[in-house]
Amino acid sequence: MGEFELIRRHFQRSAPEGSAVVLGVGDDCALLQPPPGEQLAVSCDMLVEGRHFFPGADPQALGHKALAVNLSDLAAMGARPLGFTLALSLPAVSDAWLAAFSRGLLALSDRLACPLVGGDTTAGPLNLCITVLGSVAPGRALQRSAARPGDDLWLSGRTGEARLALERRLGTPWAGSLVLDAPGAAAIEARLHRPEPRLALGMALAGVARAALDVSDGLAGDLGHVLAASQVGACIDEAALPLAPALGGLPEAHRRECLLHGGDDYELLFTADPARRAEVLAAAQTSQTVVTRIGRIEERPGLRLQTAGGAVQDWPLRGFDHFGTSG
Amino acid sequence: MGEFELIRRHFQRSAPEGSAVVLGVGDDCALLQPPPGEQLAVSCDMLVEGRHFFPGADPQALGHKALAVNLSDLAAMGARPLGFTLALSLPAVSDAWLAAFSRGLLALSDRLACPLVGGDTTAGPLNLCITVLGSVAPGRALQRSAARPGDDLWLSGRTGEARLALERRLGTPWAGSLVLDAPGAAAIEARLHRPEPRLALGMALAGVARAALDVSDGLAGDLGHVLAASQVGACIDEAALPLAPALGGLPEAHRRECLLHGGDDYELLFTADPARRAEVLAAAQTSQTVVTRIGRIEERPGLRLQTAGGAVQDWPLRGFDHFGTSG
Repeated sequence: MGEFELIRRHFQRSAPEGSAVVLGVGDDCALLQPPPGEQLAVSCDMLVEGRHFFPGADPQALGHKALAVNLSDLAAMGARPLGFTLALSLPAVSDAWLAAFSRGLLALSDRLACPLVGGDTTAGPLNLCITVLGSVAPGRALQRSAARPGDDLWLSGRTGEARLALERRLGTPWAGSLVLDAPGAAAIEARLHRPEPRLALGMALAGVARAALDVSDGLAGDLGHVLAASQVGACIDEAALPLAPALGGLPEAHRRECLLHGGDDYELLFTADPARRAEVLAAAQTSQTVVTRIGRIEERPGLRLQTAGGAVQDWPLRGFDHFGTSG
Repeated sequence: MGEFELIRRHFQRSAPEGSAVVLGVGDDCALLQPPPGEQLAVSCDMLVEGRHFFPGADPQALGHKALAVNLSDLAAMGARPLGFTLALSLPAVSDAWLAAFSRGLLALSDRLACPLVGGDTTAGPLNLCITVLGSVAPGRALQRSAARPGDDLWLSGRTGEARLALERRLGTPWAGSLVLDAPGAAAIEARLHRPEPRLALGMALAGVARAALDVSDGLAGDLGHVLAASQVGACIDEAALPLAPALGGLPEAHRRECLLHGGDDYELLFTADPARRAEVLAAAQTSQTVVTRIGRIEERPGLRLQTAGGAVQDWPLRGFDHFGTSG
């Protein structure tokens, strides 16, 4: 089967009603009509076999995750999705693999109204590159540089489960020794393989929150990007960090590793003026997403951790580095 | 050096004056302000080592080509560039490689006013994925489906040199036996490694031409996409095909292979109402690009070749297939 036939069979469909798509897959470019006056938000992520996912990973989950991690970036800007492109390098053309991959990808695409508008397919080592496009009204985008001393620091959902699932999969002793029942194990696996982008929350926070980003490389490391861009510091209240049931049985050091340096969380970390707490909670309500106030932005640079006992200690802004060896 | 430092050093720069970039590299998304009312044109291409370029390819030429092939898609829609994202998978972090690659990439980006607005960098087999964004006024985009029987068939520049350079590089006997002087060899090498996207021509043709696409996988095969999308046929006048000096000495079969099934030409193939010939030539003049009338669109499906002797024969719509073995 040729490249074009392959694309058509699994990926080409008509644009959804009411979408921004004027011309979809199949021409030199897709054409989109963005909402009048709005700004365009653009992000891209590349996922490599053996680096971002295990060789032989379930293609349906992979299709979901490849789009989810990109939509998470739109969420972090407070943008509404317009569409995405997919470039795919495949070691071999497997109809079954493509069918499962496109099923996972397009189910999320349909559910979150972000149609596939174009792409490229080629032979090569397995690699997925998605570029996502969204729109946001001028002045309402949530930028990393917008945090101010005195801001509340908020987190959607909770961190750490994806990292725990990864460590168990890697056979790390401390993670493997943790006894989880089947539903508990399935829950953390789902966090690793099927992250849910916080799009509705992001859109509800546009114009309400100040700075935001999505936590993909660990809470502390990603917070570091906000602190650097905004030239501020922060203190995290450890007792306030939402703790998944699976993490409850971990020794303190490993629990902190998961919570603060985990990776693959895809939660929103954002700051807001304390005067807007009610609006933040209303946005959480509207989007049916749990949010937790986990600390505050401070003038003094760097990150502090206020431990359960009340002591405050400096904390490294280290994250998960895709060129490093952690994780 | 970490992923972020690496990106900053080689790719981060301030947005050019007067560009659409509101927020560039470094946040979850880039923000762009497209021209009011215009449609957005989006395209992406993935280049894989060993498939689209040779292992050890000159990184500066590679940086140029990776962006050029994407801009060629914007040109084929008649769109004006707004910006692009780059995702890069690298087997190792080499400062020298990145410096040369970004030099080639950003020189073209600067020259054609298409700034880098975001991207991703990761470890993995060498793979470059660029997504390019442009804008075009509603109704003026050049679509593959717009060809009509009776249209003139036009080609910018000339085809075949990149294929000849590739065959010589591969050591194919018929290509290698061709004697070229040093400037002649350099000229065809440049066509393979440093294609020039026909952006100015594409923009000048928007609203003038009917159908268009860029010839990347061979003239005949790519023309087939226009014919299929427009439900028409075509006849190419072989004597009208512009012939590069280097191809003059080839036997007929190999010359036709290069001209009609070459690959990597990145010329524009377009159709226009014969009543608009003067406007097409004016667009060519404005953009300082040679265009040649090479045939016509016909009602009868399929492709015909009118040979120099005047005989008309059916011709296969075969192109260069990135999953195939040709080329």
